[in-house]
Amino acid sequence: MSSNLASRLSLDHGGKILLAVMDGVGDIPIPEFDGLTPLEKAVTPNLDKLTATGVLGQHLPVGRGITPGSGPGHLSIFGYDPVEYLVGRGALAALGIGFELKHGDLAARINFCTLGDNGVILDRRAGRISTELCNELVAELKPIAIPGVEIFVEPVKEHRACVIFRGPGLSESIHDTDPGLVGEKPLPVTASSSSGSERAVHVVSEFISKASEILKDKTPANGLLLRGFALHEDFPTLTGLYKLKPAAVALYPMYRGVASLVGMEQFQSNPADLSGEIQAADDALNAGRDFVFLHHKYTDSSGEDGDHERKVAEIEKFDRAVPGLLQCGFDVICITGDHSTPCPMKLHSWHPVPVLIHGGPQRTGWSSRFTEKEAAAGALGTFHGHELMSLLLAAAGRLAKFGA
Amino acid sequence: MSSNLASRLSLDHGGKILLAVMDGVGDIPIPEFDGLTPLEKAVTPNLDKLTATGVLGQHLPVGRGITPGSGPGHLSIFGYDPVEYLVGRGALAALGIGFELKHGDLAARINFCTLGDNGVILDRRAGRISTELCNELVAELKPIAIPGVEIFVEPVKEHRACVIFRGPGLSESIHDTDPGLVGEKPLPVTASSSSGSERAVHVVSEFISKASEILKDKTPANGLLLRGFALHEDFPTLTGLYKLKPAAVALYPMYRGVASLVGMEQFQSNPADLSGEIQAADDALNAGRDFVFLHHKYTDSSGEDGDHERKVAEIEKFDRAVPGLLQCGFDVICITGDHSTPCPMKLHSWHPVPVLIHGGPQRTGWSSRFTEKEAAAGALGTFHGHELMSLLLAAAGRLAKFGA
Repeated sequence: MSSNLASRLSLDHGGKILLAVMDGVGDIPIPEFDGLTPLEKAVTPNLDKLTATGVLGQHLPVGRGITPGSGPGHLSIFGYDPVEYLVGRGALAALGIGFELKHGDLAARINFCTLGDNGVILDRRAGRISTELCNELVAELKPIAIPGVEIFVEPVKEHRACVIFRGPGLSESIHDTDPGLVGEKPLPVTASSSSGSERAVHVVSEFISKASEILKDKTPANGLLLRGFALHEDFPTLTGLYKLKPAAVALYPMYRGVASLVGMEQFQSNPADLSGEIQAADDALNAGRDFVFLHHKYTDSSGEDGDHERKVAEIEKFDRAVPGLLQCGFDVICITGDHSTPCPMKLHSWHPVPVLIHGGPQRTGWSSRFTEKEAAAGALGTFHGHELMSLLLAAAGRLAKFGA
Repeated sequence: MSSNLASRLSLDHGGKILLAVMDGVGDIPIPEFDGLTPLEKAVTPNLDKLTATGVLGQHLPVGRGITPGSGPGHLSIFGYDPVEYLVGRGALAALGIGFELKHGDLAARINFCTLGDNGVILDRRAGRISTELCNELVAELKPIAIPGVEIFVEPVKEHRACVIFRGPGLSESIHDTDPGLVGEKPLPVTASSSSGSERAVHVVSEFISKASEILKDKTPANGLLLRGFALHEDFPTLTGLYKLKPAAVALYPMYRGVASLVGMEQFQSNPADLSGEIQAADDALNAGRDFVFLHHKYTDSSGEDGDHERKVAEIEKFDRAVPGLLQCGFDVICITGDHSTPCPMKLHSWHPVPVLIHGGPQRTGWSSRFTEKEAAAGALGTFHGHELMSLLLAAAGRLAKFGA
């Protein structure tokens, strides 16, 4: 609702916006830090200065108590209600390896598996084969051709790969061929709706038949299971919705994938670290982009490892990057996360995520440090992640008045 | 929306949850307490300790400015948007006396009234006859039989009773027979929709005709008025929605009724006080239940009496029960109310209700006392009552991640 309204009111001119994401930055009190969170523990003179001259708030990526994956977490802060804009598992697998899905692509996850002489599944993961072996098997499947479709087979990790079918008339209404159990045979490809899946059933069956022929004498992976069929539909882009010329700067394929979903153009970081990312953000501005998403991964990975000391170090590393970001010449800078990844949990969580907005006319002077507690009491209050875009556009003077 | 999502993401395993309700606990400043609320005035060492190691927030049972009845207030904190899940007045009357409604039951409220010789209403409440007389009249109506339906007539209080019709093809699209005025005759039974109410009109007319015949020579109650026709439809249960094995511990039929609406199993308190309720909660856990609703009535009744001293005493009584509740072995304990009942108002009110959650990974250390003011500034923020369930499930580790 609010994003529709922001879309209707958006202007094709105004300030330049930076959305810098410290992935998984939100946390909970760490006993070893005497109950401080990593954001509270970290020494962050540059973030402190931005906070004192900016405003804080906190966002709920999906809803109260709901823990988002990386896809929904990012879509939310890009202005998309993640409950409305779903990304299927197969599509996410493809995005996760940086594959650029097109409208109408049918994606599915592949598990290489071990089949017995009688065709029943002995191991659904083929003993978690090495990623190297996965790459070799995928290379053998790549030449499979079926008239009327393009087929892309891509390795993911260990026994996991994915396949994308590109061509007219495909449908995602297909049951998994993975029965989810050992001791059963892989299921035949069948439609999960009464009509409209005939083409997809035919294509996927052909693919499995040819792939099975190629794999049948291998060890230990002599079969394959497909699941999570997802037809990719184009999302409305940030350009279409908000008249932005958006750019993405991210080191990991998953985040580049989500960014490309909403029409962001990739700018390469060289070197592949924060200094390179700052340079890439600057390049994007110089190339006429007016919205830059910049992704800092390691606050999340340290949180998932439960390494609170490293998370503090990653926050401090980001803090040292702030002056460089300021020099790029953005009018509005937002620093937030896509979700919280509390170190004691070693997992994504549902806890609200601190938001800092600097630039534009704001009720400044309420806050002094970018922490969970100050953010909860900040001038921006608590809001849904997908409402963030309206706040950024407003700060940048890119939204017209509603009504006369 | 968020409750649908929580339902989709809910797991069939995880921590055990206690939802302890101090009915009507929220209040406003009491002049006699120098402007403190009963929660602020009360001495609550056990709640203080839970607060210091837990988190606070406040919930809006229905919405801003909306005062809930007991039905909507409880449904909300059980995870049901009370605007979507309506309980008709007739159904509430039946629930209020502990009658177990079944899917398809048609319930209505009865007023015994006084009719004049010409059949017009002289007193819509028959001079508020005693509850004893009400019981006697109901006993005479109980034998009424109509082919194809079961009929249950139950006393409520004074001139009020209720009737439940059980059988196929009933509809609630029937106008009240109570004209709401003296000097008029009771209205004939008529349909309020163009079709589908024929069977209900026939059954209810027959019932009124037979009841009128039985009552016609009594004094002072020689007639009856029916209103609030409500067809009971089964609610989705907490088991169906959230994979919980839920139990209810409540001393009053009304709360047992609302609990049974959402599929909670009743555990009996012996003795009928807080010590018995703690024992019953423990029994429920030992019987394998993983969600226990425990109801403390007297914070509400003291509020409705405007007795702020007694409300303080009831809060302190609950506080003394906290250690016993902790010993049961719940993983997550939530203490809240179903609504506020400010003593100066002697009524339910729309004010937000304090919430305390203890257990699970939380942003602890923000609060020190369970009061309205600290709750409003708590780590959980302000949320809709029906979002509480997601927060409890998340705290208990009973929700999967949304998206990858």
